[in-house]
Amino acid sequence: MIAGVIGATGYAGAELTRLLAGHPEIDGLLLASVSFEGKRIEDVYPHFLGEVSAPLLKAEEAAAGADVVFAALPHGVGEPYARLCVERGVPFIDLSADFRFDDDEATFSAWYGKPYQYPELRKRSVYGLPELNRPRIKELAAAGPVIIGNPGCYPTGASLGAFPALAKGISAAGTIIVDAASGVTGGGREPSRSFHYSECADSLAPYKVGGHRHTPEIARNFAAMAAASGQERPALIFTPHLAPMNRGILSTIYIPLRAEWQAEKGTGRGAVLPPSKEVEEKAAGIRLLYTDFYRDEPFVRVLPAGLTAATNRVRQSNYCDISIHLDQSGSTLIVANAIDNMVKGAAGQAVQNMNVIFGFDEKTGLGTIPALF
Amino acid sequence: MIAGVIGATGYAGAELTRLLAGHPEIDGLLLASVSFEGKRIEDVYPHFLGEVSAPLLKAEEAAAGADVVFAALPHGVGEPYARLCVERGVPFIDLSADFRFDDDEATFSAWYGKPYQYPELRKRSVYGLPELNRPRIKELAAAGPVIIGNPGCYPTGASLGAFPALAKGISAAGTIIVDAASGVTGGGREPSRSFHYSECADSLAPYKVGGHRHTPEIARNFAAMAAASGQERPALIFTPHLAPMNRGILSTIYIPLRAEWQAEKGTGRGAVLPPSKEVEEKAAGIRLLYTDFYRDEPFVRVLPAGLTAATNRVRQSNYCDISIHLDQSGSTLIVANAIDNMVKGAAGQAVQNMNVIFGFDEKTGLGTIPALF
Amino acid sequence: MIAGVIGATGYAGAELTRLLAGHPEIDGLLLASVSFEGKRIEDVYPHFLGEVSAPLLKAEEAAAGADVVFAALPHGVGEPYARLCVERGVPFIDLSADFRFDDDEATFSAWYGKPYQYPELRKRSVYGLPELNRPRIKELAAAGPVIIGNPGCYPTGASLGAFPALAKGISAAGTIIVDAASGVTGGGREPSRSFHYSECADSLAPYKVGGHRHTPEIARNFAAMAAASGQERPALIFTPHLAPMNRGILSTIYIPLRAEWQAEKGTGRGAVLPPSKEVEEKAAGIRLLYTDFYRDEPFVRVLPAGLTAATNRVRQSNYCDISIHLDQSGSTLIVANAIDNMVKGAAGQAVQNMNVIFGFDEKTGLGTIPALF
Amino acid sequence: MIAGVIGATGYAGAELTRLLAGHPEIDGLLLASVSFEGKRIEDVYPHFLGEVSAPLLKAEEAAAGADVVFAALPHGVGEPYARLCVERGVPFIDLSADFRFDDDEATFSAWYGKPYQYPELRKRSVYGLPELNRPRIKELAAAGPVIIGNPGCYPTGASLGAFPALAKGISAAGTIIVDAASGVTGGGREPSRSFHYSECADSLAPYKVGGHRHTPEIARNFAAMAAASGQERPALIFTPHLAPMNRGILSTIYIPLRAEWQAEKGTGRGAVLPPSKEVEEKAAGIRLLYTDFYRDEPFVRVLPAGLTAATNRVRQSNYCDISIHLDQSGSTLIVANAIDNMVKGAAGQAVQNMNVIFGFDEKTGLGTIPALF
Repeated sequence: MIAGVIGATGYAGAELTRLLAGHPEIDGLLLASVSFEGKRIEDVYPHFLGEVSAPLLKAEEAAAGADVVFAALPHGVGEPYARLCVERGVPFIDLSADFRFDDDEATFSAWYGKPYQYPELRKRSVYGLPELNRPRIKELAAAGPVIIGNPGCYPTGASLGAFPALAKGISAAGTIIVDAASGVTGGGREPSRSFHYSECADSLAPYKVGGHRHTPEIARNFAAMAAASGQERPALIFTPHLAPMNRGILSTIYIPLRAEWQAEKGTGRGAVLPPSKEVEEKAAGIRLLYTDFYRDEPFVRVLPAGLTAATNRVRQSNYCDISIHLDQSGSTLIVANAIDNMVKGAAGQAVQNMNVIFGFDEKTGLGTIPALF
Repeated sequence: MIAGVIGATGYAGAELTRLLAGHPEIDGLLLASVSFEGKRIEDVYPHFLGEVSAPLLKAEEAAAGADVVFAALPHGVGEPYARLCVERGVPFIDLSADFRFDDDEATFSAWYGKPYQYPELRKRSVYGLPELNRPRIKELAAAGPVIIGNPGCYPTGASLGAFPALAKGISAAGTIIVDAASGVTGGGREPSRSFHYSECADSLAPYKVGGHRHTPEIARNFAAMAAASGQERPALIFTPHLAPMNRGILSTIYIPLRAEWQAEKGTGRGAVLPPSKEVEEKAAGIRLLYTDFYRDEPFVRVLPAGLTAATNRVRQSNYCDISIHLDQSGSTLIVANAIDNMVKGAAGQAVQNMNVIFGFDEKTGLGTIPALF
Repeated sequence: MIAGVIGATGYAGAELTRLLAGHPEIDGLLLASVSFEGKRIEDVYPHFLGEVSAPLLKAEEAAAGADVVFAALPHGVGEPYARLCVERGVPFIDLSADFRFDDDEATFSAWYGKPYQYPELRKRSVYGLPELNRPRIKELAAAGPVIIGNPGCYPTGASLGAFPALAKGISAAGTIIVDAASGVTGGGREPSRSFHYSECADSLAPYKVGGHRHTPEIARNFAAMAAASGQERPALIFTPHLAPMNRGILSTIYIPLRAEWQAEKGTGRGAVLPPSKEVEEKAAGIRLLYTDFYRDEPFVRVLPAGLTAATNRVRQSNYCDISIHLDQSGSTLIVANAIDNMVKGAAGQAVQNMNVIFGFDEKTGLGTIPALF
Repeated sequence: MIAGVIGATGYAGAELTRLLAGHPEIDGLLLASVSFEGKRIEDVYPHFLGEVSAPLLKAEEAAAGADVVFAALPHGVGEPYARLCVERGVPFIDLSADFRFDDDEATFSAWYGKPYQYPELRKRSVYGLPELNRPRIKELAAAGPVIIGNPGCYPTGASLGAFPALAKGISAAGTIIVDAASGVTGGGREPSRSFHYSECADSLAPYKVGGHRHTPEIARNFAAMAAASGQERPALIFTPHLAPMNRGILSTIYIPLRAEWQAEKGTGRGAVLPPSKEVEEKAAGIRLLYTDFYRDEPFVRVLPAGLTAATNRVRQSNYCDISIHLDQSGSTLIVANAIDNMVKGAAGQAVQNMNVIFGFDEKTGLGTIPALF
C-alpha cells in the first residue's frame, strides 16, 4: 500500500513520514512539499539518511498516486486534495483543523477566519478521535472514501482526560478548566522569536490565554461526550502554556464533581486539612471507573494510585497516560494527562486512524515502547 | 551590620549568602552549616571563589554573633535559634514553615506533623509577605526583636496573583484554582530521583496533587485578604508541577468573577466564540485595578495588555510579574504570575523583609535587573 | 528465544529491556535486579506499563534460564555469571569493562583496581565492536559459547571516528586527541550531585581530565586498527565532558595527517587564512575514503560535505554519524562523530552483537528511525 | 556620565544596556536601534520594565550625545560612528570585529569579506583584551579618544586559557588545539533554524569546522603573547560547537609542552596507565605558574586542583575560570576555561574596557557574584 504525505517537511509531516516508513503495511511513500519541491526528504531532514529516501513532489502528485493520503498543511488550504481523494476513492486524513468541526462551519470560521471551501465534503468527514468516534469512522470508511479530521494536540489530551467523567455523569454542572503545557515542537518548524532557543529555554509562560483555537474543539468534544449520557455540556476554560521541552503535552484538568462523588467535606470551605482517607477512597473509585472506561483502548493507560502522569513516560509513543486525583477537600476531580504531542497529538493518531479505516490492528506501526529519555 | 545565615549550604541559604554578600548595609557574614561545619563556603560552592569567603560555623555561633539572623533550615528545627535571637534582641528571619501559621498551630501540625516547640514565640512573629503585612512587620520590629515567617515560594506567587481580586471584591464566592509549576531548584540541593537530570529534563509532571503543604498557607493568605474587605474566603485548589528549568515559578490562577465583573455572556454556556471586545474591555478594567493596587509596591509589575507573565523575565530578580486575562466567555479571571522561586520566592523576599525591619529602602541589595537568560 | 538481562534496572539494563522487548527473535525476557528483586520491572519503570511486564529475579535465575544473557552490572562483579553461561553453553554479553581488555589484565587492573576473577574466560571472550571484530565474534560464536566485552560508550564513538584514518595509513605518527561530550544518561540512574538537575542543566564542563577509564580502551582500539595496516600506534589524549542533554555522545577527533594527505600549506604556520579550495578537496578525498571503509556497515553513516555530525540526528537509533573536516591549514583531520550513548554506545550495540552471534540480520530489532527530537 | 549604545536591541546590546544601567558611574543611557527606532527599549525587552526605560534613537543621535559610545553592530557597518566619536573626542567601544585586527587589514578582509572603510582609524584603536593590552589601552586613552576592538567571545576564552603557557615559554613548538562550545545566546537574537529550540535543544554539534572567523583572532593573540617572550608562534586549530544551554563558553585547550615541563614518560607512547603522581606534580607546578601570572587580574580565577572549569560557576559574571590538567602521559597541558559569553565574552568585557579607559576600578558595575543557576 502506498501512502501519500502532503506537507511532508513540516514537523507533523516529518513525524508522519517517520512512522509510515516503519509501518509494516506501507510499501511506499509519496511525499509532497511546497517549500522544498524538487529536493529529497533526506536533504531537508538528514537524520533520515539511509532510512527514508524520497523525492519531494507536488501535492497533486502525492494525492493522485497514493492509496491513503495524509495532509499536514496549514488550516484552510487542503480541501482541494480532500476532494481529489474522495473522487479517487481513497481515504484522506487531514491534520489541519479543516475537518474537525463537521458541519459547524460557523464555529470553524469564527476561530479560523475562513469559510469552508467545499462544505459538502463534511458528509464524508468525521472527527478522528478513535476513543470517541471509532464506530463512526469505521462506518464511513465502509461506505466509501472517508475524510478524517485528525484532532488537535491539546484537544486529544483534554478530551481523553475528561471523557469518562462526562460519560459516566460524575461531573457536576459547572466549568471544566484545562490547564495544559506543550513542548516546543508544537510550534512547528518555522523559526520565530517565540521558539528561539534563547527566549524559551529555561522558562515557562502561558500564551493566547482565553483565545486559543483549540478551545471550541475541546468544548465540542466535551459536549458530545456529555450528550451521549444525557448530561448538560459543561463550560470550558482552556489555558495553554509553552514549556521548555521538545515533546509532550501535560494537561491538568479540573472537573467539579456531583455531590455523590465528592468526599463529605467536599464544599472546600472547611478547615484546609491534608486529604483524608475518604478523599483517597473517592479517588480510588473514580480511578476504577476510568480504568473500566478505557479497558479496551490500546493507547490509554490509567495509572495506578501513587503515580502522576508525566510527559517523559509517553515519549515517542502513542500512549495517553492518565492519573486520577482529588483536591484535598474532595470536591473536585483533578485529572493529569500526558501525551506525546507529535504522536498521539498528531502523527501517531493519524496513523491510528489509518489503521482503523483499513481494519489493521490499531497498534500496527505504533508499537514503540516509550523511551523515558 | 553583621548578618548570620543558619543553613547556609542549602540552595536557599546559598542564595541568601549571595544576596547578602552584595548588600551595601551588610558588612560581614556569619555562615553556619550542619553538614559542612569546619569547611568554608567556597569549598562547598566554588562559584563563590574570590567573592564570598567564610568559615562554616555551628548554628549557635552564627546566631550569637549577628545583628540579624536568617535561618534556611528544614521545618521544625529552627525554633531554638529564634528564641536565642529574641533573647539577644535581634531579628530572626526564618525561611522554613515554622512561623508561617502564626498561632494556628493546629493547621501547622496537621500538615507538618509536629507541634510548635515554643508556641509563645508567635507573639513576636509575623508572616513576612510585605505586600500583605508590611505595617505589622514594621510595628513588631519597632516594638522589639521580630520573627519573620518568610513565605513559601508557591504561596508568594499565588497570593500576589489573587490579592487584588480578593481585596477589591471582584471575585465571586466559589473556588480559586492555582495551577503552578516550579523550576527544579525548588527541590533543593539534595540529590534524589525526582531531581535527577535524566528523569526530569525535557518532561513535565504534577506532584503531590491535592496534598502539597503550601495549600493551607495559600488558603490562609486568601482568607486574610478576603476578610480585610469583608469577603467570604474562597475555597482553594492548588496543584504544583515540576518544570524542566532551574529557576522560576509560573502560577496560573483561575478566579471566578462576580456577575458585575463578568462579560455579559459570562455564563460560559453559550456558543464558544473567540473573546469579544467586551471581554477585552473587562480585562482592561481589572488590569487597571491590579495596577492601582500595586502602585506603590517596588517588586510587583502588572504587565500591559498583550504580554503574558513568563519566568524568564524575572530571572535573578525579586520581581513578581502579573498578567491579567479573562477566559473567552468573560466569566473567569485568569491571572498569570511569574517569580524567581529562589529570590522573591525565598532569599530575596527574606532580604526584603530585613530591609523593611531596618527601615532600608526595600530595593537595597535587590536591584538586580532581570536577566532574560 | 529467551533473553536474560542481569542488572535490568540500571539505565543500560532498562534500555536493553526496551530493545529486547521489541526484538522479533526474542520470545521472552528474564530480568534480574539486585536492588529491586521481588518487584516487577514496570514498578521501577512505569513507562513500561502495558508494554513490558516481568518479575525481577535473582541474577542466577536469569542466567540459568536464558538462551542469551546480557549483564549490565558494575565492573568486576559479573564474571561468575559469565562462567555460568559458558558452562551452560549460551552467549554472555557483558556491558561492563570486565571483558574489554582481553588478556591484558595489567591494563584492566591498573585502571579498574581489580584483578580478573577467572582469567581463563578470556579464551572465549572478544571485544564486541562489530566494525572491528565481526569475524572474530562469529568465529568464537561458531566454536562455542562466546563472551562479548561490549564496548564503552566513548570508545565506540572515538574508535569508529578514527578507524579509517588508521587503517588506511593517512594519520601521521603523533597524538590523536579525542574531545568528547556525553549526555547525562551516561552517568546512570543513581542520583548524585554531578547529575542533579540544578547543577548540570544549562552548563558544560569536562571531568576526569587525563584520567578517564575509557582512555586505555580507546588507545588499545587505535593500536589494534593501526597494527592491522602496519602502522605505529598513535599516542592518545581523551577528554570527556558532561553536556546538558539526556542522550548522545559527540566526539571531535583531531588526527594529524601524513604529509601526502595534507594540503600544501599544511604546516599551519603560514598566514591564517580561510580554508582554501585545496583544503576542501583534500577533505573530500578523505570523506570518500571513509565512505568506502564503512560501505558495508549497517550502522555507520558518513555524512556528505556540508553537514556536521549532531547528536539529535542519531537519537534513539544505533547509528554512528561521522562528518569529515580539515582544519583551515589542511594539516589535521577533524572527525566529528555522534552516537546515542544508550544505543550504539551501550544497549543497541549489545543487541547488535547478539544479532552477529546468532546470525540474524544486524539491524533486527534495531531499525528505529532516528527521531531528531 | 552618559553612555551610548548603538545596536541596543541585539543580545549584546541588551546585555550592555543591562550592565550600564546598573553601573554607578553611568547617569544616563542613549540607546539606538535600526530595527526598532521609535519604540522604547522596554517594548522590545519587557524584562526591563521598571528598570530601564529609554527611547530607541537613530545611531547618530546616540553617538552624538554620549560621553562614551558602545557599538554592538554587525561587522563592517560601525566605522562611521567610530570616526564621529574620534572627532567628538569620546571613546568608542566596538563589539564587532572591525577593530580587532589593528592594521592587519589583509586578514580582516580575508575572513570578513570587506576592506576597512577608514583604515586610519586604526591609529587610535587597540584590541581590548585588558589581560593582554591594558597598558596600551591606557596609553591610547590618555592621548585622546580611543577606539576599542572588543574581543570575540571564543578568542577571549581561548586567549586567557593559553596566555600563561605562551608567555612563560612552557609550550612546545607545535599546534595548539582549542575545542570550544558556546551557549545559544552566542547566535544572537535573530530566529533561525540553527537556533530554533526544537533543533538545538538536547543536542550537541560542531559548526564551521576549520572555518570560523574567530580563528585568525585567536591565532594573532597567541602570536602576540608568544612574541612577547621571544617564542615562535604556535599553529592553531579551533573548533566551535553549539551546546544546548543559554549562556557560557567552555574551551578545552590542548597545549604541547616543552620537554622540561613534561612528565618523564611524556612521549605518550608507553603503556597507557592512569596518571602518575609525577603527572599531578607537574600539573601543580603549571597551576602555580598560571596563578602567579593572573595574580593581579580581577576577573581571572585559576581553580585549585580537583576542580574543573564549568560554565555555571561563572554565570552572569565577568569571571574567567581556568582549570589546569595534564593528559595521562604528562606530555600535553590541557586547560579548561569557562566564561559567560555575554559578559566576559562581550558586554562585560566592553564595560571593563570602559572602566580601564576612565580609570575606574575595573570591577565597577561588574561585581555580580556568579549565580550557579
